[in-house]
Amino acid sequence: MPPLTVFPIEGVPEVREGDVLAELLVAAAQEQGTPFEPDDCVVVTQKVVSKAEGRVVPLDASDAGARRALIESESVRVLRRRDELIISETRHGFVCANAGIDLSNIPDGQAALLPVDPDRSARRIRDGIRAHAGVDVGVIVSDTFGRAWRVGLTDVAIGVAGLAAVVDLRGQSDAHGRELQVTEIALADEIAGAAELVKGKAEQVPATVVRGLDAEWFREGSARELVRPPAEDLFR
Amino acid sequence: MPPLTVFPIEGVPEVREGDVLAELLVAAAQEQGTPFEPDDCVVVTQKVVSKAEGRVVPLDASDAGARRALIESESVRVLRRRDELIISETRHGFVCANAGIDLSNIPDGQAALLPVDPDRSARRIRDGIRAHAGVDVGVIVSDTFGRAWRVGLTDVAIGVAGLAAVVDLRGQSDAHGRELQVTEIALADEIAGAAELVKGKAEQVPATVVRGLDAEWFREGSARELVRPPAEDLFR
Repeated sequence: MPPLTVFPIEGVPEVREGDVLAELLVAAAQEQGTPFEPDDCVVVTQKVVSKAEGRVVPLDASDAGARRALIESESVRVLRRRDELIISETRHGFVCANAGIDLSNIPDGQAALLPVDPDRSARRIRDGIRAHAGVDVGVIVSDTFGRAWRVGLTDVAIGVAGLAAVVDLRGQSDAHGRELQVTEIALADEIAGAAELVKGKAEQVPATVVRGLDAEWFREGSARELVRPPAEDLFR
Repeated sequence: MPPLTVFPIEGVPEVREGDVLAELLVAAAQEQGTPFEPDDCVVVTQKVVSKAEGRVVPLDASDAGARRALIESESVRVLRRRDELIISETRHGFVCANAGIDLSNIPDGQAALLPVDPDRSARRIRDGIRAHAGVDVGVIVSDTFGRAWRVGLTDVAIGVAGLAAVVDLRGQSDAHGRELQVTEIALADEIAGAAELVKGKAEQVPATVVRGLDAEWFREGSARELVRPPAEDLFR
């Protein structure tokens, strides 16, 4: 199997509302000598997607009441509160801290909300890359979430296009011919996490390419595959 | 930044109790023309570590009572039960299904338990690779865990040596000079997930190399960094 490679797309200018991300990414990838190739997976951070889509709202971060109200307005259900931290479920079904509202790398006095429909955002980028570069890639919109039970954040997929979000290996047999039991792999989350390994948090890398993934994984996909239905969730 | 590359170590013979994994891995990496390099991170699956350490016990998988008893004997606390599924906390502090007991890729009638001390397992492999290949690598022992709220399994780190498990970027400032709030990254989990992307579940790839990680991340580390203390855990 050829190695997987993971590299950042650098040199993308500061993203503003109305920018066409696909165009910026195609140009930057060309510029750095790594044009997109078929079956690349392009992982784009939520922050630049939200900026391009104008999902930035004024917020005085020192005003705890305003902060709380904004988080609640972006939530359908609050799961836990501790001090300033709110763990809630967003309209998309994601469970995360502060409804995914991002206060870092945004000019002071503003907060970036999650895209309204991150799958659609991913699809738009995918369609744009096809239009501008002539190649079919998978696209993930990634965000940084905490987890239950384990310390530390990981990047996960909140939007997916042209790629399976979950790969179901159930029913394939293992090397002993026994049927594998539960092997639904959260592919898009693992790819998003891999992408984070090459982007320093403070260095404004808006997108990363993961190259060398199994060609079979490139098909219609949605981040909704990654949302466990509340009725099946033992921890909601 | 040079790209990160991720590739499997293939051609490792079936692992048996008492095998010295480091020796097998060094030989296989040499054999396939990719000898270990300094600051490689070598991700070794729990299954082969458990086999080498003799953590395999007889189990009639069709005997639900025996299965349950074994899971409970490997748990310090049961968090949830649903039908055959038990979510519990292991002695190490990991929260996972069935106490991490692995029934796949093990000859029928046997089950692989988690290593007693996966950090020590990782350290032994790291020391062995230094002894046999003369290079200092980071080592992760990985296992496949489910998550709350999200569908699908991801590979995570249950043992770590020579690598930071969590990278704390708190207090560094972002591109706008604002202090970043919470950016404790679960580095070892993201590396374990990246490693899984190149190993087909049914193809017996016992180890993967992740090459090109930030040299600063290679220092003393432990998977205990990844265990959220129950008192700080809102979901235990």
